[in-house]
Amino acid sequence: MKLKGVAVIGQSGGPTAVINQSLVGIVEEASKYSEITGIYGTLHGVAGLLKEELIDLKRESPETIERVARTPSSALLSVRKKPTAEECARVFDVFKAHDVRYFFYIGGNDTAETLHIVNKIAQESRYEFNAIHVPKTIDNDLRVTDHCPGYGSAARFVACGFMGDNLDNRAIPGVKINVVMGRHAGFLTAASILARKFPDDGPHLVYVPEVNFELDLFVQDVKRVNEKYGRCIVAVSEGIHTADGRPVVELGEKDAHGNVQLSGSGALADFLADQVKKGIGGKLRIRADTFGYLQRCFPGVVSEVDEHEAREVGREAVRGSFDAEGDGSVAIRRVNNNPYRVEYFMTTLDSVAKHTTCMDSSYIAREGNDVRENFIDYVRPLAGELPVMERLQAIKVPKKLA
Amino acid sequence: MKLKGVAVIGQSGGPTAVINQSLVGIVEEASKYSEITGIYGTLHGVAGLLKEELIDLKRESPETIERVARTPSSALLSVRKKPTAEECARVFDVFKAHDVRYFFYIGGNDTAETLHIVNKIAQESRYEFNAIHVPKTIDNDLRVTDHCPGYGSAARFVACGFMGDNLDNRAIPGVKINVVMGRHAGFLTAASILARKFPDDGPHLVYVPEVNFELDLFVQDVKRVNEKYGRCIVAVSEGIHTADGRPVVELGEKDAHGNVQLSGSGALADFLADQVKKGIGGKLRIRADTFGYLQRCFPGVVSEVDEHEAREVGREAVRGSFDAEGDGSVAIRRVNNNPYRVEYFMTTLDSVAKHTTCMDSSYIAREGNDVRENFIDYVRPLAGELPVMERLQAIKVPKKLA
Repeated sequence: MKLKGVAVIGQSGGPTAVINQSLVGIVEEASKYSEITGIYGTLHGVAGLLKEELIDLKRESPETIERVARTPSSALLSVRKKPTAEECARVFDVFKAHDVRYFFYIGGNDTAETLHIVNKIAQESRYEFNAIHVPKTIDNDLRVTDHCPGYGSAARFVACGFMGDNLDNRAIPGVKINVVMGRHAGFLTAASILARKFPDDGPHLVYVPEVNFELDLFVQDVKRVNEKYGRCIVAVSEGIHTADGRPVVELGEKDAHGNVQLSGSGALADFLADQVKKGIGGKLRIRADTFGYLQRCFPGVVSEVDEHEAREVGREAVRGSFDAEGDGSVAIRRVNNNPYRVEYFMTTLDSVAKHTTCMDSSYIAREGNDVRENFIDYVRPLAGELPVMERLQAIKVPKKLA
Repeated sequence: MKLKGVAVIGQSGGPTAVINQSLVGIVEEASKYSEITGIYGTLHGVAGLLKEELIDLKRESPETIERVARTPSSALLSVRKKPTAEECARVFDVFKAHDVRYFFYIGGNDTAETLHIVNKIAQESRYEFNAIHVPKTIDNDLRVTDHCPGYGSAARFVACGFMGDNLDNRAIPGVKINVVMGRHAGFLTAASILARKFPDDGPHLVYVPEVNFELDLFVQDVKRVNEKYGRCIVAVSEGIHTADGRPVVELGEKDAHGNVQLSGSGALADFLADQVKKGIGGKLRIRADTFGYLQRCFPGVVSEVDEHEAREVGREAVRGSFDAEGDGSVAIRRVNNNPYRVEYFMTTLDSVAKHTTCMDSSYIAREGNDVRENFIDYVRPLAGELPVMERLQAIKVPKKLA
């Protein structure tokens, strides 16, 4: 049943390179139905709702809308906020005042959880209303869906980053440690293996949060690879932790305030580099980079499949809302892998809210220090066709000197 | 005069995204002349020469060569080495044994210096020989030339990085510090201002090594910008230093070994973030990223102008070698800026070896915390056309509640 009233769209959590495709997909599809009497945006998600700061998306020109779709990072601005009961009541006052009957909220599992709370209050007040979650996350850790919009483009960035860095490290050998985003799930770090083409290409070691991290084994692994190839590139998730759940970064020295920061700091990469230096030492060239925020909003490094799917989940959210009976979340089902083909469907908010998922153990090498080739089948269609890295044949000239 | 004999090509120093265009430009042009009886590559620059490890570049297929041209990072592998007198003698034994009469060495000022030393010994031994330097460096710090191949693509990466990060920071506000490569020259850091489109776009502050850095003023600058915009994005060169020449990173705590590392570490970014935290504090969200090695070899983020020019300096090196009277270095002259047009010419090795240049003071704001708009005219043609970052018009919906 199509409720008659206004639709509000919000964005929440960490932005992605394609999150505005979903916004524009919703606007496009919602514009088709006379029952949807207005299409508003809320700035900074629920924070904007609390201040009744709404903007009229129907007054945007088609040219602006299309350019915004191709612009990374939340055009409606973002927020990390779980509203309290009083705040939810306030949100409902705003919804009622503007006759809002659809709330499309683009975000991850925390966003779905917020939507779940808001919708619970709507149901209790018997306000007819659809709360629809539109998935996005570079972490790719949402339940039910095969993968999340935003992940493919971030995976592409990580793959390209490792492709270039592998060649850089091959030209000037040494140990290189690259820390990739991902607190609980290793999907993004695992995408680094897309960089492998020749047998000696890196990353040579991959550590994800799905496996307990052991510092001694790590140093031994690096030593072994470095002895084999004369160099070693390591991919590490920011969220790696020891068997007792302690973040590895905490094993390092704390700053003057006793704080250790996970994202937005080079602490983990520098700590691991230091451990390798202490464990192997000598004249070994050791470098560490933290890919940081570049991974999620880099313009121009976007997967076409990801762009397309992000738009489609926005469209599906509107279509699905009509049968949603109050709430729902859009998900993607992979129907075929070669050729790659997906379909979109609605799942309940309850099935995706709050909890996350992580990589299936079948993707992880038994030793816990690598990602298996079968993961390539999963991730390649999402990251899209990658630039070709070529080597010279390097046919030797016979020596003339002793 | 065209000497008859073999040409050897080498690559040295930090790789770039387009360094193989220069390699291929040399191969293409050298193939045209019957006087050049062979085209060899040396692996790892002078290190390969010392081991007589030469490869035959004429035996590469045209398809491989063209794919290599578009692949980032030194295909001939690299080295950071200034040969000793004995080593130079050994290099000459190798050159004589293979009848090498041309040595094209692609690199920065240190590479030119190495070539200079090698050539001096050639002249002393009256061996007829051309030592030609082919410029590359993302730092853009070579003398004589208007700019260096490799810089445009790295500038493009930095510009795109700041474009995305500016929007990310606008969506989730706070202070964000990004450290960019550049030990002595701020050209690459200055390219961050290409990210500005709207008046409140970052980077809001830019610190380059051409200006003495004052920690207190920096913290005050950040505070002021953050009060104005509710957020602040800072671009910092890795090589910033105090008035007495001390690297800023050394002001922080040293590691257990008393070492502070400049590149390949997040230490400077983390130190500056910590200073802002101490100086402003409160609940301010502060993040720091070090762009690191991603800047110089990221596949796919390449300036077309840079690609083209890198190829052309390779070609010019061969043509110029015939009149070079022993040595030379290829340089670029900007003939016109709008439309952008350049020409290539030869300068002496002596004029580019050893010493570097840095940004003209006219590009730097009087306060020393920003780069002036006139720098845009200089850098825009080099970085190429950038992705369009669009914002919503964001026309407000009238409020209905108190």
